[in-house]
Amino acid sequence: MTNPINLDELCINTIRTLSMDAVQKAKSGHPGMPMGIASAAYVLWTRILKHNPRNPQWADRDRFVLSAGHGSTLLYSLLHLTGYDLSLEELKRFRQWKSLTPGHPEYGEIPGVEVTTGPLGQGFGMGIGMAIAARHMAERINTPEFPIVNHFIYAIVSDGDLMEGVASEAASLAGHLRLGRLIYLYDDNHITIEGDTALTFSEDVKSRFEAYGWHVQEVSGYDLDGVESAIRCAQAVVDQPSLISLRTHIAYGSPNKQDSAEAHGAPLGEDEVRLTKKHLGWPEDASFLVPKEALEVFRNAVGRGEQLESDWKRMLDRYATVEPERYRLWQALVRGGLEDDWEDHIPTFAAETKPLATREASGKALTAVMPHAPGLLGGAADLAPSTNTYVKGFGDFASDNPAGRNFHFGVREHGMGAILNGMALHGGLIPYGATFLVFSDYMRPSVRLAAMMKARVIYLWTHDSIGLGEDGPTHQPVEHAAALRCIPGLVFIRPSDATETAEAWRAALRHKGPVALALTRQKVPIIDRTKYASASGLHRGAYVLIDAADGKPDVVIVASGSEVSVALGSHDLLRQKGIRSRVVSMPCWEFFAAQDTAYRDSVIPRTAGLRVSIEAGSPFGWERWVGDDGLIIGLDRFGASAPYETLMREYGFTPDGVVEQILRRLRS
Amino acid sequence: MTNPINLDELCINTIRTLSMDAVQKAKSGHPGMPMGIASAAYVLWTRILKHNPRNPQWADRDRFVLSAGHGSTLLYSLLHLTGYDLSLEELKRFRQWKSLTPGHPEYGEIPGVEVTTGPLGQGFGMGIGMAIAARHMAERINTPEFPIVNHFIYAIVSDGDLMEGVASEAASLAGHLRLGRLIYLYDDNHITIEGDTALTFSEDVKSRFEAYGWHVQEVSGYDLDGVESAIRCAQAVVDQPSLISLRTHIAYGSPNKQDSAEAHGAPLGEDEVRLTKKHLGWPEDASFLVPKEALEVFRNAVGRGEQLESDWKRMLDRYATVEPERYRLWQALVRGGLEDDWEDHIPTFAAETKPLATREASGKALTAVMPHAPGLLGGAADLAPSTNTYVKGFGDFASDNPAGRNFHFGVREHGMGAILNGMALHGGLIPYGATFLVFSDYMRPSVRLAAMMKARVIYLWTHDSIGLGEDGPTHQPVEHAAALRCIPGLVFIRPSDATETAEAWRAALRHKGPVALALTRQKVPIIDRTKYASASGLHRGAYVLIDAADGKPDVVIVASGSEVSVALGSHDLLRQKGIRSRVVSMPCWEFFAAQDTAYRDSVIPRTAGLRVSIEAGSPFGWERWVGDDGLIIGLDRFGASAPYETLMREYGFTPDGVVEQILRRLRS
Repeated sequence: MTNPINLDELCINTIRTLSMDAVQKAKSGHPGMPMGIASAAYVLWTRILKHNPRNPQWADRDRFVLSAGHGSTLLYSLLHLTGYDLSLEELKRFRQWKSLTPGHPEYGEIPGVEVTTGPLGQGFGMGIGMAIAARHMAERINTPEFPIVNHFIYAIVSDGDLMEGVASEAASLAGHLRLGRLIYLYDDNHITIEGDTALTFSEDVKSRFEAYGWHVQEVSGYDLDGVESAIRCAQAVVDQPSLISLRTHIAYGSPNKQDSAEAHGAPLGEDEVRLTKKHLGWPEDASFLVPKEALEVFRNAVGRGEQLESDWKRMLDRYATVEPERYRLWQALVRGGLEDDWEDHIPTFAAETKPLATREASGKALTAVMPHAPGLLGGAADLAPSTNTYVKGFGDFASDNPAGRNFHFGVREHGMGAILNGMALHGGLIPYGATFLVFSDYMRPSVRLAAMMKARVIYLWTHDSIGLGEDGPTHQPVEHAAALRCIPGLVFIRPSDATETAEAWRAALRHKGPVALALTRQKVPIIDRTKYASASGLHRGAYVLIDAADGKPDVVIVASGSEVSVALGSHDLLRQKGIRSRVVSMPCWEFFAAQDTAYRDSVIPRTAGLRVSIEAGSPFGWERWVGDDGLIIGLDRFGASAPYETLMREYGFTPDGVVEQILRRLRS
Repeated sequence: MTNPINLDELCINTIRTLSMDAVQKAKSGHPGMPMGIASAAYVLWTRILKHNPRNPQWADRDRFVLSAGHGSTLLYSLLHLTGYDLSLEELKRFRQWKSLTPGHPEYGEIPGVEVTTGPLGQGFGMGIGMAIAARHMAERINTPEFPIVNHFIYAIVSDGDLMEGVASEAASLAGHLRLGRLIYLYDDNHITIEGDTALTFSEDVKSRFEAYGWHVQEVSGYDLDGVESAIRCAQAVVDQPSLISLRTHIAYGSPNKQDSAEAHGAPLGEDEVRLTKKHLGWPEDASFLVPKEALEVFRNAVGRGEQLESDWKRMLDRYATVEPERYRLWQALVRGGLEDDWEDHIPTFAAETKPLATREASGKALTAVMPHAPGLLGGAADLAPSTNTYVKGFGDFASDNPAGRNFHFGVREHGMGAILNGMALHGGLIPYGATFLVFSDYMRPSVRLAAMMKARVIYLWTHDSIGLGEDGPTHQPVEHAAALRCIPGLVFIRPSDATETAEAWRAALRHKGPVALALTRQKVPIIDRTKYASASGLHRGAYVLIDAADGKPDVVIVASGSEVSVALGSHDLLRQKGIRSRVVSMPCWEFFAAQDTAYRDSVIPRTAGLRVSIEAGSPFGWERWVGDDGLIIGLDRFGASAPYETLMREYGFTPDGVVEQILRRLRS
């Protein structure tokens, strides 16, 4: 085992056996993929990757994404071996309660894990988001003398990744944008869970990616120098993303399971582990063995990484002196993307102004804050004009203008979702992405990951109810507010007017996690804050806009978004009928749920005679706030195509319609 | 206008002006696309399409899918002109309340509309589902002498469709399956909402589709004979799907708006409509004008269609005599895909059997019913072994075995969702598709459309909670039950044991709309139905499994899925402590909500001292059944990677954990 000729193989087999052993000990996991791709991963991590295991946060590190997240033991083995703060003990606790080695890599939990992966295609898309962020920041930060932002994005992707639509969308965009510093290793092992990939996947991957504008190479996954040359060649292709297709064998080295679907998602079995070790020239009885010579090779990463980072820091110090203005920008970006006084620039709206769609108010807020939030970068999935997300004067991100801050995603909502996550995780940017609320469904898997990773992404979802009118039920969100509110960790804000929209932007930029704004297409009145309560109540999730004269309401009406002005109209009508009501604006359930019970009960007292909710969407979940005996005015069906005033009237979202329902309930 | 040389142009301009006029009158809509593609659509509908306007349900009609659903006036114009039961008056009521001409085509509402489209990419995928259904049925039904199933699937698709991942997934599969009778016209007009497609979409579409295995042609969209030849050439390519790329101009004929993004989603304006008419040689003042000569050309479809169908019917009569066995199969398929006695074959499970995962029970039910449900065809998105959806003895659908009834979707959940819809809408089949519940997110836009169209699709979503264990939070659904329950029209069933799973299959096959089964990965006890109530209660959504001895429970515990046995354990523990409880199994909210109040109150009395729910998922929405003062035992966070027993214990989903919470609440 000490023959230097075989040192590479010794290192590679260390990865293989650690991966096998971890899965076997857990009696659960995916051993085949790490065993198959270990050689190429070894080349990447020991000969190519720029990283500092002692500081996984170093801003100019290369990013490594294991898009095929089920092969997590590959990544955990590499992290442990190259000297990250991940002990061998943790590898032995693979997939156990509170270990640092969960079934799939989890961002934020494990030093060196750049993204949470597992749902296929997501890592593929997030890597592209990272490459966009890197390209953009390089353009704004670097000078010829100071390449401060100078890293590559690498990923290992699987056939499953390539089959997923989210990857197709992102790949097409990456080719269009000519992202040169994006290098993906495709683990072409010909095996999926159901069997040979030939069962469902016979497309010509090389031609497909070339059609997207990628540079494609094909190499054996076991030719170490060939893999290295291919990566270096890909690095030299500065104006195209690269796919390096590596023919590999799942469960490489396993006498009975290599090249079989069995090896994908189950332990090899004690006997086969022994046989495989024997076949690899490994001590059969050894478990979690890390040969000293191999560890030495891997641990070179520590010294090398420290040197790289310290060289870079010296450069940054010089840069601070020579390029003070750029350095200030750099600092603003890495510290969160906001200038100190950004909040002063959130606009206000006067009540005398005529009605304004909240999408328009959002556009104004974005335009106002953009110059003071240098990290903001975003756009829409081909709906910039409709979502009011184009900010004049900040240029369009393009291959020949990577400093542009307006981003065009194309009709690619899911790709947008994954790319936004990658931009956010890269650091330095606050990405935002827009589409119609109904199409949040298209990007939902990425939104879930954003919530899980606490990625700082802002979603601008407009056309937020039947209030969009004529486009009809395919475009009218009904269930979406409910479906998004139930994602743990996502903040969903549906502001009632322009003023609350500005506060929603403030909240979004303050928050350290994903925030969604649901915005109207139709115009809504600007609530007179001299008469009604301040919109600052938004930050507590719900607040009393106006109360019964004596503070003892018979009816408490809770509403969100465009229905708040309907509630205010209802309040007036009820007063004329001698019924005391309170109107609560509830733009954000998550913020309200985080308040203490005393505040919540003070806003929506359970003792009220009747609690009413109004939201032009699914009634689902509103019992939480108005009780199962409350009156929930919602829409428990799909909408229809007609002018929005007609729809609102027909479905009862008018003061008259609401008051009629309240009176009927009070009489019953 | 009567010059026969220009008759084609007269017809085409009739489509253009009707589309313009409808949008202009509605002051809302998308005029540019119909104007640009009118020539090719005219060729397809007058020279190629096999259809009978007098019977839009004719089983052997060609299917036409307007994937770019925003161009709905194109379709409405064609339907009116060729003689479907869609009057000119309806065209004048475009996008109005209760008109037959909604903003986007809606299936089930309008004669001749085959699918609901609008959300991009969906129509593209659904057409592929139709082509799969047609290929499959042709193989089982046809003989050389009797080509009973003998139609093509056509679609008009846009650049937006091609950018969507769902289309990429479906296209890759269509190429793999060599679906020859699929012919898509690509409206390559170079314009998206944000501007020129070059802004985001510079991929080589031709090469990309050739890489998928498609036959690709490029033709001018205004060369009528060229378009016709290309379609006939595509028909002759029997072993590849076809894409015919048509270079077109959005808003063709509009002097000021042709080739501009402005013409995509807004009326041209009164003045521009007049200018365009003038430019097209049309009477400027005429509105909704249908020249007699043009109508005559289009209406040829009626006589031709009646002839085609009557010829076909004669063939079917002969077939009935010559091929009686096949004819019986044909009848079973077109009448709903089930043999008369299918319900007799739903299996039962004895309580003494050892615990069984509900995914396994589902596999047994499917296997038992498959021979008696000839319309069943389905499979998984590369998870057949994990979802128990492979049925032995029924072959694998493949290009060389289209009669196979096990379908392999590959790692393409969204494509699967759209394809399932297309299969269902084609008629003759009951498609089912499987993946993990967490990945229902990937296919959600298609699920929504299934619900809207009442498409008879069965979803088998396994690994339905943290009970899947080690794979961790990326694979553990938490919010999914809630997020699916809020889709109007989707039936979501989470059975508690093997017996309820069999009843869930019965319910799914009875239902005329989409039904989802959420199934466990982990084993769960088979509830002893001699001791507890019959699982037939599933059909009412919720039912009392066991009550307090005196029928006066202090505590009513409502649970679903794997947590029902936890509830039963809790019931026993509580009885030991002298607390009277009732356990309600609630597998399906939608069925329960459809019961009358008397039944609902008899199962879950509001007067109970404490109502409790147990579900290992988001608490979101449970207040509806247990009140806002109820005890909701759920999981309001993402899960973790660990063995499932650990997770269930740590998160409190054990009888001990539940009883502890109930006692705490009763004491407070």
